[in-house]
Amino acid sequence: MADFKGIADQFVGFYYQTFDADRNGLAGLYRDHSMLTFEDSPCQGTAAILEKLTSLPFQKVVHRVATLDAQPASENGSILVMVTGALMVDDQPQPMNYSQTFQLQPDGQGSYFVFNDIFRLVYPAQ
Amino acid sequence: MADFKGIADQFVGFYYQTFDADRNGLAGLYRDHSMLTFEDSPCQGTAAILEKLTSLPFQKVVHRVATLDAQPASENGSILVMVTGALMVDDQPQPMNYSQTFQLQPDGQGSYFVFNDIFRLVYPAQ
Repeated sequence: MADFKGIADQFVGFYYQTFDADRNGLAGLYRDHSMLTFEDSPCQGTAAILEKLTSLPFQKVVHRVATLDAQPASENGSILVMVTGALMVDDQPQPMNYSQTFQLQPDGQGSYFVFNDIFRLVYPAQ
Repeated sequence: MADFKGIADQFVGFYYQTFDADRNGLAGLYRDHSMLTFEDSPCQGTAAILEKLTSLPFQKVVHRVATLDAQPASENGSILVMVTGALMVDDQPQPMNYSQTFQLQPDGQGSYFVFNDIFRLVYPAQ
């Protein structure tokens, strides 16, 4: 079995580094059958996903990962990743908690793409 | 394609209702190749997973789901589910946030079992 934890670590580091620097750089991580659910908005395909991510209404964003867990997700080598963390946007001083789940699938050429992507902000329980 | 959102809703309702009433009742949802990562503890197989869940150090627990998102996870009918919510244990007045991801797989007999399960408490960002 591939080193799923190492691959997940490497993917998550690259993903948020790219997200925070230039969201357009995420295009290569998705395929036309990839799915993103961002808060209440589901979309599918690289173009729709990039349109969603690049239209989010902030200029600056910094993700800070708190936990990162991975498990093998299928016999074909896909990897399930769940991240919890915090993000800061623009000049708002207060970070927001979030949780994000990815399923990474091997692309047959030694790399991985994002098949599933679910993102939710986590609001403090009352 | 099966009604993945309806199946996810039904599963999540049953899962937490059973968890909160009698964790032993969750045994039927796992198989011997199922994986659970509960906080920092990974384990595999129905027996190990039930041992973990039933040994958690609280008597009373109530889960309250805040968000529930689902996506088809593979061509074989598996379903990815991410939940965020809050839980209250014993007589502690303050709920804790959590996030939990499941991959449900069809069991070939019209039902589903949990192949992947990742659980994390989410602590307020500072």
